[in-house]
Amino acid sequence: MELTYHTDYAFRVLMYAGANPGRRVTLREISEAYGISKEHLRKVVHKLAQEGFLSTAKGRAGGLVLGRDPASIRVGDVVQVMEGSMAIVNCNRQPCPLTGRCALKSVFNRGQRAFLTELNKASLADLLGEERTFSGIRILTEAV
Amino acid sequence: MELTYHTDYAFRVLMYAGANPGRRVTLREISEAYGISKEHLRKVVHKLAQEGFLSTAKGRAGGLVLGRDPASIRVGDVVQVMEGSMAIVNCNRQPCPLTGRCALKSVFNRGQRAFLTELNKASLADLLGEERTFSGIRILTEAV
Repeated sequence: MELTYHTDYAFRVLMYAGANPGRRVTLREISEAYGISKEHLRKVVHKLAQEGFLSTAKGRAGGLVLGRDPASIRVGDVVQVMEGSMAIVNCNRQPCPLTGRCALKSVFNRGQRAFLTELNKASLADLLGEERTFSGIRILTEAV
Repeated sequence: MELTYHTDYAFRVLMYAGANPGRRVTLREISEAYGISKEHLRKVVHKLAQEGFLSTAKGRAGGLVLGRDPASIRVGDVVQVMEGSMAIVNCNRQPCPLTGRCALKSVFNRGQRAFLTELNKASLADLLGEERTFSGIRILTEAV
């Protein structure tokens, strides 16, 4: 049970942007800070912008900033957007003869709702509010 | 966010064994019922037996039966055993400079506990108790 790398990277991008309020950060500096290719980041940023979590601008003074107040960016919502379908069991992996008669899927769906509800108790502001995290990102920012 | 196929297959094996109380079922019949290779099933059965969820016997009259009362086999416990480490974010995917200073991991750990707690409200007995599921497996059993 692991989240996709897109979700993982999405949080790194949001935390980086959130730790640098008041200026547009670039794909290049995020790429260098985390050692993640710009191509991978571009897809993640596109999705985050589409959902309003980021606001992007092109050109010389371009870059990205948070699209919303970090207190309104909830962790579970980001996971849900990045993970897409969230089908936790793949009933079609080997077409399962139980499909449609099996109670397991609904049990897993309830588990998943509990997971997202718990994650939504934390916002990006909570993550950034931790002094350690924030200074961690600042150190990174200064290093690049 | 998807469970491994080992977890998926583990539930299929447990449900098959649970739907056939009073007799030892064989790897071959489970393999045929679900269209899953015996090699994949063998690893899953080994793990389930190691944890006491199944009891296996070799030889001519061999096969497998549930190792515990189905009411005491909780869905979350099976998931936890099959998924192993349960590290939901892979902080080493690209060695992350935030490791050790990042609050995200603890938020995800709380989410995961909520997920497992919710799953543990259901047992294998609950899954088998659903008439539809039970008869679904019976139909399968008769068809092989």
